Amino acid sequence: MNFKTKISKIENQDVTIRGEKLSSLVKTGSFTDSIFLLLSGRKPNENESILFEKVLTAVIDHGMGTTSSLSSRFVASGGNSLNVGVGAGVLSIGNYHGGAIENAMKFFYELKDASDEDVKEKVKDMLTKKETLYGFGHKIYKQGDPRVAVIIEEMKTSTFLRFKDLIESTIKETKGKQIPINIDGLIAIILCDFGFDPLLGKGIFIIGRTPGLVAQTYEELKEEKPVRRLAEEDITYIK
Amino acid sequence: MNFKTKISKIENQDVTIRGEKLSSLVKTGSFTDSIFLLLSGRKPNENESILFEKVLTAVIDHGMGTTSSLSSRFVASGGNSLNVGVGAGVLSIGNYHGGAIENAMKFFYELKDASDEDVKEKVKDMLTKKETLYGFGHKIYKQGDPRVAVIIEEMKTSTFLRFKDLIESTIKETKGKQIPINIDGLIAIILCDFGFDPLLGKGIFIIGRTPGLVAQTYEELKEEKPVRRLAEEDITYIK
Amino acid sequence: MNFKTKISKIENQDVTIRGEKLSSLVKTGSFTDSIFLLLSGRKPNENESILFEKVLTAVIDHGMGTTSSLSSRFVASGGNSLNVGVGAGVLSIGNYHGGAIENAMKFFYELKDASDEDVKEKVKDMLTKKETLYGFGHKIYKQGDPRVAVIIEEMKTSTFLRFKDLIESTIKETKGKQIPINIDGLIAIILCDFGFDPLLGKGIFIIGRTPGLVAQTYEELKEEKPVRRLAEEDITYIK
Amino acid sequence: MNFKTKISKIENQDVTIRGEKLSSLVKTGSFTDSIFLLLSGRKPNENESILFEKVLTAVIDHGMGTTSSLSSRFVASGGNSLNVGVGAGVLSIGNYHGGAIENAMKFFYELKDASDEDVKEKVKDMLTKKETLYGFGHKIYKQGDPRVAVIIEEMKTSTFLRFKDLIESTIKETKGKQIPINIDGLIAIILCDFGFDPLLGKGIFIIGRTPGLVAQTYEELKEEKPVRRLAEEDITYIK
Repeated sequence: MNFKTKISKIENQDVTIRGEKLSSLVKTGSFTDSIFLLLSGRKPNENESILFEKVLTAVIDHGMGTTSSLSSRFVASGGNSLNVGVGAGVLSIGNYHGGAIENAMKFFYELKDASDEDVKEKVKDMLTKKETLYGFGHKIYKQGDPRVAVIIEEMKTSTFLRFKDLIESTIKETKGKQIPINIDGLIAIILCDFGFDPLLGKGIFIIGRTPGLVAQTYEELKEEKPVRRLAEEDITYIK
Repeated sequence: MNFKTKISKIENQDVTIRGEKLSSLVKTGSFTDSIFLLLSGRKPNENESILFEKVLTAVIDHGMGTTSSLSSRFVASGGNSLNVGVGAGVLSIGNYHGGAIENAMKFFYELKDASDEDVKEKVKDMLTKKETLYGFGHKIYKQGDPRVAVIIEEMKTSTFLRFKDLIESTIKETKGKQIPINIDGLIAIILCDFGFDPLLGKGIFIIGRTPGLVAQTYEELKEEKPVRRLAEEDITYIK
Repeated sequence: MNFKTKISKIENQDVTIRGEKLSSLVKTGSFTDSIFLLLSGRKPNENESILFEKVLTAVIDHGMGTTSSLSSRFVASGGNSLNVGVGAGVLSIGNYHGGAIENAMKFFYELKDASDEDVKEKVKDMLTKKETLYGFGHKIYKQGDPRVAVIIEEMKTSTFLRFKDLIESTIKETKGKQIPINIDGLIAIILCDFGFDPLLGKGIFIIGRTPGLVAQTYEELKEEKPVRRLAEEDITYIK
Repeated sequence: MNFKTKISKIENQDVTIRGEKLSSLVKTGSFTDSIFLLLSGRKPNENESILFEKVLTAVIDHGMGTTSSLSSRFVASGGNSLNVGVGAGVLSIGNYHGGAIENAMKFFYELKDASDEDVKEKVKDMLTKKETLYGFGHKIYKQGDPRVAVIIEEMKTSTFLRFKDLIESTIKETKGKQIPINIDGLIAIILCDFGFDPLLGKGIFIIGRTPGLVAQTYEELKEEKPVRRLAEEDITYIK
């Protein structure tokens, strides 16, 4: 079994992460910049640093009722410690919960060098075939997600932001209604600007959401009675 | 089944977290300050904010060979997606891996109002009985953990830092050798200064380490062949 | 890192489990007897074999509404494969869900050599102190669990069955009402008769329930829309 | 959120599973027959019952060194209880570990009505394109898996067993060497004979292997020191 890595190295009574001493990262003291370095192998520039803080904050928690919050709470309520509840919440972050970032990133990267016209044609074609346009539309934020607006304000330069307007306007033209970009779509644009691998899309969501899962699991353990279960009258038996 | 929460609330096309609008938190743009608010219900002051960045950075990754990194990698190598590997790593953060913070916090809180003499007596008694002093000593950092030093520099005021010197000096007197505080012990002191519940100790470790688990799992998925397993010659069969 | 085991061994193109060739176990062809051997190191006698089949069958599934079924279903609904849903269900089987078997076993083993009078005294004392008598009482089966009756019929000889009558009658005398043994309590008695370690109590429950979790997760993946979440109106926000 | 199920129902102080009372299943007392009913909705016939016992026994454990055993052990060694270790092992049973059954089943079902000649052509084509033939070949059992032989003896009638000889002989003709069916391939044939959905293939493997994961995790908790980790000298740092 091979154990080789380029992430980090323990040597001379310190850890080196992507070429930087961990104690130096602690001294500099930005958790978010350290995450950026750890995942990408390079330090963010000033604007990237500002945007990455916003991206992670934007997904920190989305209420008690999300799939991951409930997964954490149910598993914890069986009589488990905090790490097990949080771990179960992370497990639930699958293709349909946080997975849109990765899919949107793949789509944007594929069309990176396409002309505006080609992008619009592609989107029209997908709309006709009823294929999913990852990163657009939201059940709750019909008028646009307030997190999106405050992040865009800070996007000084962006190669991929053009996809927002191109896709929104094509949807408007084709379907006659406004379906704005959602937070997953905007995060995908930013991570493409950073040059991140799409496979890291879900990872960024997990890092951002883990504090929320800690909070939800902690509340469950402190405030709720154990063994959550459905009442029989809430179950419908079918044949 | 009751579903009640004081963490966060979806209303008026926005999320409110502990009384703050999520879009405002995104605008302000500090991930770490938002974590602090989410977990404690209050915003950190300036020094707390600086220290919390350092605490989370300090545990971001500790090499490929840790229990949680290997748990992530083995589970991922069975043919699973990123979230499953990261979730398995979080699961492994049990009583013996990241658990010292919680235990040290309980100990410090219990002795919060004790006199220096009483603390020294208590520690001597524990050393005699060979009980564990959580948060002191490390297999690798015999001379003291370099992360500890750079964090202490920033600790302007601290109610609980006295436990470091009291316990280190009592160990020196009793056992005749230096066993310095480790990063878990120092984090425990800081979280006690913050007034956090000991049960959140493991949660802070999980939040800090999740980026490392994302990096380790990502590398496993990108670089390694599937299905890690032991060679038969590495296994000893006993009766 | 040591890798030593007495469970099983790959050699000469076959696996040996607790001294038996796996191909021979397959030829003999009893899954349940093989589980018994694997866990205890010895083959069951005829009556033990009959009882162990019943024990595992008794916990195979307990409806859609249990904590473990819901944990499996929520995690699967985030967009995960079957193994992840089933794994999450197993995680949820903590101290309060399936954990009573282990606790009851410890209690019975401790009192193994106590006289009937001493057992009754101990139970009375616990009832007075409102301590939990693991393995007695059930929210649904007020008149006694139908699974209990059909298993007891087959218990030819039992050292530990006396605890059922002793505890039930002491409860009746002390509290004036019938609180019958539940399936966890009876399984604890049987596993004590087998001489199993209490730590295996939860393991037996997990083995028995895993088919139910496979069925529940499979149904979720085949029949339900992804991303289960609470409706906002089902959540109560508190301060 | 809909909660509807056709698996099982709690009513009249008993549980009904697929139309059968759970207490009746316990009285009849076959764990394996009950699993068959729970998953498929029908009881097995006599030969199916015999074969299903063998299938589950065949995968009960495969040594300490498998991906799932190690996943269980690493997670448990972080300081977790039995259910968490076993759950982590189940998580690891992904596409590359136990996943071949599902893939082989899909392949056999697709070719169910194909002529022998068409099957051989298809297999030749796949070999030319170096596509994976799921269910054939094994690193350890070069001469054929001893579990396969003892199961085939009991296969009275089989619609799908013809794929074994057809594929083995086509491989022999095309590549000039013997690559025998493995246990995954034979299980796939049997589950196709049963008429099971391919998605249940991994579920059967999980049910069969869970006892092994309980045994491995139990041994880890009883016999090993906590916090398994790699020694630094076992890690290779690359750039």
